[in-house]
Amino acid sequence: MDFRVIARRVKEDSYNMANTAEAKRNQALAAVAAALEQHQALIFTANAKDLKRAEQDNLPGPIVARLKFNESKLADVLSGIRDLIGLQDPLFRTLLKRELDADLLLEKVTCPIGVIGVIFESRPDALIQISTLCIKSGNCAILKGGSEAAETNRVLFEIISEAGIKAGLPEGFVTLVESRSEIQEMLKCHESIDLIIPRGSNEFVQYIMANSKIPVMGHADGICHVYIDKSADPEKAAAIIVDSKTQYVAACNAVETLLLHKDAPKDLLERINLLSGVHIECRPAKSEADYKEYLDYILTIKTVESLEEAISHINRYGSHHTDCIVTEDSDAADTFMNLVDSAGVYHNCSTRFADGYRYGFGAEVGISTGKLHARGPVGLDGLVTYKYKLHGNGQIVADYASGRSSFHFKDITET
Amino acid sequence: MDFRVIARRVKEDSYNMANTAEAKRNQALAAVAAALEQHQALIFTANAKDLKRAEQDNLPGPIVARLKFNESKLADVLSGIRDLIGLQDPLFRTLLKRELDADLLLEKVTCPIGVIGVIFESRPDALIQISTLCIKSGNCAILKGGSEAAETNRVLFEIISEAGIKAGLPEGFVTLVESRSEIQEMLKCHESIDLIIPRGSNEFVQYIMANSKIPVMGHADGICHVYIDKSADPEKAAAIIVDSKTQYVAACNAVETLLLHKDAPKDLLERINLLSGVHIECRPAKSEADYKEYLDYILTIKTVESLEEAISHINRYGSHHTDCIVTEDSDAADTFMNLVDSAGVYHNCSTRFADGYRYGFGAEVGISTGKLHARGPVGLDGLVTYKYKLHGNGQIVADYASGRSSFHFKDITET
Repeated sequence: MDFRVIARRVKEDSYNMANTAEAKRNQALAAVAAALEQHQALIFTANAKDLKRAEQDNLPGPIVARLKFNESKLADVLSGIRDLIGLQDPLFRTLLKRELDADLLLEKVTCPIGVIGVIFESRPDALIQISTLCIKSGNCAILKGGSEAAETNRVLFEIISEAGIKAGLPEGFVTLVESRSEIQEMLKCHESIDLIIPRGSNEFVQYIMANSKIPVMGHADGICHVYIDKSADPEKAAAIIVDSKTQYVAACNAVETLLLHKDAPKDLLERINLLSGVHIECRPAKSEADYKEYLDYILTIKTVESLEEAISHINRYGSHHTDCIVTEDSDAADTFMNLVDSAGVYHNCSTRFADGYRYGFGAEVGISTGKLHARGPVGLDGLVTYKYKLHGNGQIVADYASGRSSFHFKDITET
Repeated sequence: MDFRVIARRVKEDSYNMANTAEAKRNQALAAVAAALEQHQALIFTANAKDLKRAEQDNLPGPIVARLKFNESKLADVLSGIRDLIGLQDPLFRTLLKRELDADLLLEKVTCPIGVIGVIFESRPDALIQISTLCIKSGNCAILKGGSEAAETNRVLFEIISEAGIKAGLPEGFVTLVESRSEIQEMLKCHESIDLIIPRGSNEFVQYIMANSKIPVMGHADGICHVYIDKSADPEKAAAIIVDSKTQYVAACNAVETLLLHKDAPKDLLERINLLSGVHIECRPAKSEADYKEYLDYILTIKTVESLEEAISHINRYGSHHTDCIVTEDSDAADTFMNLVDSAGVYHNCSTRFADGYRYGFGAEVGISTGKLHARGPVGLDGLVTYKYKLHGNGQIVADYASGRSSFHFKDITET
């Protein structure tokens, strides 16, 4: 079937999905959790096939590790779903209630974005996280997972889809896209898909941004900085650099450029290599080309004359993701946090904290480096928008324009 | 000078603009108001030149009317600036304060978007409204006004720029762009400009959206609907249709398609023409091409079998701007307002109420039909974003991943 027809059906279902009561969405989440538990043998069998193929194809170790979906991963996602059920309903919240005039009541009410296309990497648990976040927030999801996880994703999708529909969600609440060519078709469906969240390599995200009229939320680069101020505590500095670089070297929130104040503690690089279990290659910056994302055990090192130079460097060469200052001087910290224009500005802690789970959001669908709508880790809040409802009794604008009527703007606070 | 160099300077100034205290921004607004009042003779002289040229060029009456900037327009904008000064500061508001663990405090704090490019139509008062909204919200503004208003805009810009800089705002807080070629250059400055708000014709807005990597907020089409339910009050229905169509026929929130339930009051079209001072041409819909924006005294009429068909028609052919149901049946109204996927969903009142001033926002920079970031009339709230600040004491993620430390997520409510 033409993908545009499929997408339009999902769009039509999205209006009903948007108006599903909180209880029904939570019941559907409980049903999904129960079905995943019940059918775990099916999931593990499918995952074994993916793992076998990965081995045959000689996929690198880290990818195989992410691909693996075992009992402990299942326990994690089930606990995640239970947490999600417990979170406050993001829908039908009244953000503003204002009487414009007698009998003319304006309400600003939260509602889902509609249809969200998510293109994600090889982790099968991402499929579960994303589809359950979309259920909770009343959005329909169109999902495209990594091809390495095809068998696992198909089984997970079938279990989630069946459980959700049985629990009363509209048929199109979740759709799985399996072929690469369907990504191309997805990008053309700007009439039916409201938002695309791509998770993947820099080039891939930039390709999506350049080839679709659909708004994209996410990030391409993750060029994070740690700036070591002249008043830095050397022990904290070393621990933060090592953790920011090595705790998960392929993450978007790993540090890529280390900025050292000219009077920063001198023995830092030795401390780092003593502390780190692996060797971190420190490369002095030679040109603008060195201010890049390595996703490897490599750090660009630049010495700066002042706090101001550090801030200016980050705003110019960073990717507005997450940047940290290490200092015992709280004024310097405030200046840094106010002037650095990034989704996350940190004082004396690892850049690796930039994550929906660690912020207490339950889970995230991605991290946004854009400044509109949602910034930083995107949880439930980033999956809703609002509409204005105006309740009248026959009012017309001509009466207000001529002065026969006038607005009295009275905000009504609910208790 | 290369426009990209100018835009980068504005970008650099935007970091300081973002951190201007509320008192300074309000003082700057007061200084701008005082300067406009003091130099009014200069403004009126410049405006007389624009009006003279408009006459020579035989510009249509409505454009000349919008171009006019006289004492009453000045009084309006001065009162608007005073209102703006009185509004709550949109910046430095803490949206969330959460202790992730002891000594590890997460704050979500509002901040300006940064540099906003606004391309607007011939009304010189728009220049004042937009630049003062940007001052209040701590954004730097790059403005391109209609060429018909070139003389007035230049004088207004000089007055505002001088008063703001004297009051302590950074030099680049407002920039005027005068030539059409600079619009092309603006669209390429995605590294320096964070958001473009285009106000103008459908084609113009679509052109901008297709030719820039910079996010665009606004609307192209305004295809608004009034749906007359079978339980509509005929008198309210007629008044709402006439006002929605004729109160300002060229507005984006004017009604373009009238949907009539097959059992709607029969004498509606006669009532409309009795009530309206002008003749409204009612065109029965013949094809999809009739579901369009006229910006004229023309209405497409379509009869529908049911409320559901009306909703479905609006979601498919509308522009998600503002749509109204006229009915005495409150269940029908609720269904319509929940299922119609538009920025404004109205019950028994004119679509012309969709406006920042009428919603009590003080003023608006535009109306957004997109669902991300801001929807409907966009006031101060739509000109800010947020950043996450994380205050630590040397914490690293490895300790949480290994279980040596754990998060306790304690929200702190400020009083």
